[in-house]
Order: sequence, then structure tokens, then C-alpha cells
Amino acid sequence: MAIDDIKQLLEEKRYAELKEKIKDMQIQDIAEIVDELDTKNAIILFRLLPKEIATDVFSYLSSERQSEISMMIDENELNEIVSDLFFDDKIDFLEEMPANVVKRILRNTSEAERKLINQFLQYPEYSAGSLMTIEFVDLKKEMTVAEALEKIRRVGRDREIVYTCYVTDAWRKLEGIVSLKDLVLASPDTKVEDIMKKDVIYVDTYDDQEEVADVFKKYDLLAVPVVDQEKRLVGIITIDDIVDVIEEENTEDIQRMAAIQPTEEEYLDATPFMIARKRLLWLLILMISATVSGYIIRKYQVALEAVVALAAFIPMLMDTAGNAGSQASVTVIRSLVLGELKFGDILKVILKEAQVGVLAGVALALVNFIRVYFVEGYGFGIAITISLSLIFTVIIAKIIGGTLPMIAKRIGLDPAIMASPLITTIADAISLTIYFSLAVWILHITM
Amino acid sequence: MAIDDIKQLLEEKRYAELKEKIKDMQIQDIAEIVDELDTKNAIILFRLLPKEIATDVFSYLSSERQSEISMMIDENELNEIVSDLFFDDKIDFLEEMPANVVKRILRNTSEAERKLINQFLQYPEYSAGSLMTIEFVDLKKEMTVAEALEKIRRVGRDREIVYTCYVTDAWRKLEGIVSLKDLVLASPDTKVEDIMKKDVIYVDTYDDQEEVADVFKKYDLLAVPVVDQEKRLVGIITIDDIVDVIEEENTEDIQRMAAIQPTEEEYLDATPFMIARKRLLWLLILMISATVSGYIIRKYQVALEAVVALAAFIPMLMDTAGNAGSQASVTVIRSLVLGELKFGDILKVILKEAQVGVLAGVALALVNFIRVYFVEGYGFGIAITISLSLIFTVIIAKIIGGTLPMIAKRIGLDPAIMASPLITTIADAISLTIYFSLAVWILHITM
Repeated sequence: MAIDDIKQLLEEKRYAELKEKIKDMQIQDIAEIVDELDTKNAIILFRLLPKEIATDVFSYLSSERQSEISMMIDENELNEIVSDLFFDDKIDFLEEMPANVVKRILRNTSEAERKLINQFLQYPEYSAGSLMTIEFVDLKKEMTVAEALEKIRRVGRDREIVYTCYVTDAWRKLEGIVSLKDLVLASPDTKVEDIMKKDVIYVDTYDDQEEVADVFKKYDLLAVPVVDQEKRLVGIITIDDIVDVIEEENTEDIQRMAAIQPTEEEYLDATPFMIARKRLLWLLILMISATVSGYIIRKYQVALEAVVALAAFIPMLMDTAGNAGSQASVTVIRSLVLGELKFGDILKVILKEAQVGVLAGVALALVNFIRVYFVEGYGFGIAITISLSLIFTVIIAKIIGGTLPMIAKRIGLDPAIMASPLITTIADAISLTIYFSLAVWILHITM
Repeated sequence: MAIDDIKQLLEEKRYAELKEKIKDMQIQDIAEIVDELDTKNAIILFRLLPKEIATDVFSYLSSERQSEISMMIDENELNEIVSDLFFDDKIDFLEEMPANVVKRILRNTSEAERKLINQFLQYPEYSAGSLMTIEFVDLKKEMTVAEALEKIRRVGRDREIVYTCYVTDAWRKLEGIVSLKDLVLASPDTKVEDIMKKDVIYVDTYDDQEEVADVFKKYDLLAVPVVDQEKRLVGIITIDDIVDVIEEENTEDIQRMAAIQPTEEEYLDATPFMIARKRLLWLLILMISATVSGYIIRKYQVALEAVVALAAFIPMLMDTAGNAGSQASVTVIRSLVLGELKFGDILKVILKEAQVGVLAGVALALVNFIRVYFVEGYGFGIAITISLSLIFTVIIAKIIGGTLPMIAKRIGLDPAIMASPLITTIADAISLTIYFSLAVWILHITM
């Protein structure tokens, strides 16, 4: 159902009809519409939602809309919604809300839950602890399959994922996992102990979310248990949250590769000031680094005065060097992120990039020679200078582009910072040095 | 267990010990080791695997290793493994194998399965059809919960995901879905019809994998049903395959953004020739485009001859313009991919980038003025020319960087091609034009 139809029904106050229409929609589609409407209509529509789906829709809203709704509805309604949220959604919600909303909510929370909430709020951002939820089913190994299924029937309705159940001992230490599939397939009097899997893959509360995502990718998991330092089971992380983490990490890498400090703010929500702040640092660093290229040109000012035509090829040479280097660096950065390359492969990378550089450099030089000498009618000396510069520049740019990200990773930096902008700046300086040195030599310029 | 220990045990032929050690390892870790060993040892280790995990390990191997093993083991063994593979893994495997291996396998396949395999092999690459598998549980709406669970117990062992079951009518048309959780929680004599969800999210066999991934992300699914043009259920796609698709699509975007034609080949597996081929087209296009900047410099050759010092700031101006533009374009490209921006927002983008451009441009110009005028002692005229050029250049580069990807998407191109390299080339030409125009005017150069 299109948002325009909804708007019309709201305008004409045809609420009964609207209620009927909403009933068959997907939770996420309703949330999208509540997000897109203006505040007044959004709140009317939200109040029209049947109780049993209101909380679900709420959990998919943007935090701005959540905050607006939280302030417009009365405290009882708010409490009902918040207490129905899954624990991870509750934590995410509280993290984003202004202090007065948080206070309103915590006022009506039990002492025990308040303690738990505070504990969860303290996990560092981007840690496994900050992603996990507590709605899992825990079983004991002495249970029979029938008893286990009985427990799942009793508590499963509020659990986020019951497809994997966790077997813990008296001290809450994780002993094994058993899938709902295995429970359903097993005979009722089998002991859980006999069908549980004992080599459990788990993560630590303080593991970085990127490592957690790698574990999911490698082992094709739907959920992973999270343990504290005493190896006690404290929560689980589910695949839907990991899909978001993967996209977040990719966004972060892409931002770093474009010389932007990572931000989680959506573009349209960020103020120009916030955006400029995230971009300025690298622009400054790169601008100042680029002065090295300026010094090189100044150093060869005599050559430039002798043959001013040389200046016309500076942009083409610099750009080609930058592009050739970026291609190599971005390829290597991505391979590092995906785990396809290790530091030990650095010699292979150098060799491969050198070969690619020769192939690409010679092809580009040929095209360029034809253009400069035959088409544009420059002298043979200049045409040869430019073509040779291209070959050497492309080879060196490719080798540097391929190796710097690996070195960065080795010394503990994010390889993504070694992408196009930084490589371009380095490649510029190299291409200019090669170009002018060759020019002085080939064109017999007295310096 | 480290690979070196495994190698040692293989070397010393301590196979019994090795077998014992492997038993407790995760399938994916064993596959990783089989992939890393040399061919001879890999095959020995693979043969040592207990039958019940050999197929699972096989499905996680690289296609090179799969192919080697397929040619070394006898036809019966091969058949046993292949017939145990999940259908989507089987299709992926057959797609990668040399013709003689495929022939060996199809020889021992039933007529019906051969037909099905051929049908699946014909789905276009990157389509939903090419990702789906046929191991799902289908139920009828007249069944009771007890009957449904009985069927799951009977067939579930070979099904990839039994957590969602699909309800179809006599013509195999999809009528609803019911989760294993709901079946377990419901009383045994409830009819499936009464607990199934009728508004099912599904995809079409010919949908692009990127759209399918978007559906998973939006609706937090674990699996999605795939229907043919007659709306008959033909397969399901599971989340683990979608996680791979998401990473693939991100890799493709990142490659495009770095002016590389997308490739699926892993870096270390690709030959220099293959790599050069994927990179050369864009290098050529960009090199030729960069000659525009050359023409601009030639046009202002008189100005450059009059004030040769101007040349020293060309790299800094060009690089800063390129970086400022890339930051904007990459931010917008990513927001388009994540669905946070639509074409209708183009005016907002222009306004926002203009504001960011003013903020960043002025800050950069200030730093630069101090450096050029006070630190390096250039004349006031040159310092002002450079600083003003920076401001205008950054503003224009940001606006162009922000809008070109949106226009590209609008006219059906991949916005990712409007990333750093192309924007850099355009920004270069603009920055040089602004720079020399201002220089001629401020420094009173007679052209």
C-alpha cells in the first residue's frame, strides 16, 4: 500500500478503513511509513496500530521518531512498549533517547532490570557485548528432549531465536548447544546431553563486532553465544544484527578509503558542520602533503622555463599515477579485509603488481606516444619523455599501492587509509620526479 | 589445532592420531586446512575424514581443491559425496568443474535430477534462481500441527533450513509460511492453516541478487521463498548465501569506485594479465580525459611563462579538488546503495555540499594563505589567488561530486563509476580553469 493512500485516509479521518488496511502489511513496511509521515500523522497512525504489533513497529522506527513518540504518549503506554522490546532493541533505544525519556522509562523498571540495563550500556560501542540480547533459551544437559521442548513451549514466545538452545551448568557456564531441529528430530526421552554439540563456537563480550561478523561468515551461523571473562553465558548475537554490522563495517572502510573520518550519521540527517568536520582533517593532511609535489616542480623550475610545454602533461601524468596506484591499493585493501591476503604474501603482491604495472604502463605509453607525437605533433624528445615516464610511474605506483596497505596493517593501522587519496599524493610526487629527471636527461636541459 | 601440527602428523604418517584430532574440529576449519595443504597431503587428509563429515568439508573447499579431489577419487566415492551435497552447493560445484568431472557425475544421476540440474544451471548468474536450493519442507494447509511435525521429522534431516516451512496448494503455488517455532509452540491438533502467515515475502527466480539481499536486510529474514512466473514455489534462498552476496556486492562497488572493472577472482589466484585487463580500460579513459587539463594549461601557457611560480601550486590545487570531490561522491554513492538517498533529494544534496564546501574551502584557504604568504614569503597577489581558487574549487568539486552519482543512477548507470577517479579528472579541469582565470585577473597578466 502506497504512502499516498495512507496519507489520504489519514487526511479524511477514515481510521477504520486504515486499520483494516494496515493489518495485512509487513511490520517493516508500516515502520517505513510511520518514519516518512509528518510528526502529527505519524503519531495518529502509530496509535491506530493493534497492540500486538505496535512494539514490533516501534523497534524498527528511526531514533528521532522513537523519541518523538516517546514524548507524546503517556507513561503507561510507553512502559508497555518498552517492556515488550527485545533486550537488545531496548538497549539501542535507551542509548539514543534524550535523558528525560530515559528517566521516564527507568523509573518504572525493576531494580534487577535496571542493573542489567546499566551493565549492558557499559559495554564499549562496537563490542560483542553491545550487540547481544538476553532472550535465549537455556537448557540443562540432564533434561530429556521432551522436557526441553516443554521449556521451549513455556518460554519460547518471548525469545528472539529459539532455533539454537544453549546448555549451561549450575554456574551458567556454557556446556553445549542444541538446535530446535535436533530436538524435534530426536525421540522424546533422549537426554539433551546426548544430542548437544560440545565444541561450541562462542565470542567474548569484549570482542570487536568485526571479528564477530567474521565468525558468522566463516561458520555460517544464525546466532552465536557471548560469554564473559569467567566463560559464563551472558547473551547471544543474532544474524540480523550481524548483517547490519557487515554493512556498517563496509561503509566505514569505504569512508576511510575516500579520506573521510567514519561516521554513523545518515547523510541527510547530518548538518553541514558535522560533515565538514569529518572531512576536513584528511583534506588538510593531504593538502599539506601535496606541497611536496610543489617543491619538486619548483626544483625543476629551470627545466619548466626552458620547455614550458612540459607543464601541459603534468595533470595527465599525476592522474594516471594516482589511478594506477589506487587500483592496486584498493584491490589489496579489499583482499585484506576479506581475509584473502596476509602480510606473508607481500613478495607475491610486489611481483604481481610489478607485472601488472609493466603490462598497463606499456599499453598506456603506446597510446600516449601515438597521441603526443603523431596526433599533436610534439617533438620526439618530449613524446619519448612522457611515454617513458608513464611506464616507470605506473609500475612504481602499482607496487607502492599494493604494499603500503599491507605495511599499514602490519603496524596496526587500518589499511583503508592507504587508499586512493594518500596513494595519489605519493604517486604525484613520484611521477613528477621521474618526469622531470627524464626530461632533463632526454631533452639535455641544463639545470 | 594449527596447520603445522597437522602437517607433522601427516609427514610422520600418524594417521590414527590425526583422525582423533580432526574429530573435534569445526567443518570450516578442517576445510581451511585441506585448502592450504599441498595436493598430496590434502587428498590424504580428506580420505581420513569420517564419511559423515566428508561431504560437509567438501562443500567448503575452494573449487580448485574440489576439482583435484574429484579427479583423484574413484567414481563411487565421488557420487556419494555429490549426491549428499545440498542442491545449491551441488550446482555451484558443477558450475566450477571441468567438463570431464561434470560428465562423470551426470552419468550417475537420475533422469529427473539431471533435468533439474540443467534447469538450475540455466538461471542467469547473480539471479535469485542461481542462489536457491530445493531442500525446503513443504506442508499442506489441511495438515494438523502434529502431522506437520511428523513430516518434518521424516524429511527434515536432509533439509537445509527447517525453521521455516512452506505451505503450498495442489499446483505448488505458495499459500503461506509457518515457522518451526510456531509449530512447536502450537497445540498438536491445530490446523496449519490457522497458524500460517499468509502475507509471505517472496522473490522471483529472475530477481537480481542485490534486490534479494535488500529484501533480507529490510525484513530480517533467515530464508526467503523463490517462485517462478506462475507463482509456483521452486526453491528457497538462505541467509548464509545472502551474507556472501552482500560482501560480493560491496567488493564490486569498491572495485568500481577505484576504476576497476569488477572481478570475482581472488587476487592471488588471478594472473597479472587478467588483473591488467580489468584495470586498463578505465586507466585509458581517465588518461585521455586528463588531457583536457593539459589543454587548459596550454591555453594559459602565457600566464605560466609570466609567473612560473604558479606551476608549483598545480599539484596541491588539483589534489585538493579531487579529494574534496571524492569525499562528496563516495558519501552519496554509499547513501544511494544503502537506500538512504533518492533522486528526489538532489536539491538537498546540492545545498548541503555547497555549505560543506564553504566551510571546508575557507578553512583550507586560511591554512594555505598563512603558509604561502607568511611562511614561504610569496607575494600577496599569488597567496590570494591560490586561497580564492581553493575556496571556489572545493565548493564546486563538492557539488559536482555529490550530484553526478545521483544523475548516473537516474539514467541507469551504476553510481559507483562516479567515484574518486572520474570526479578527480573533472575536478582537475575545473580547479585549473578557476586558478588560471583568477591569476590572470588578480596578477594583471596580459594574455
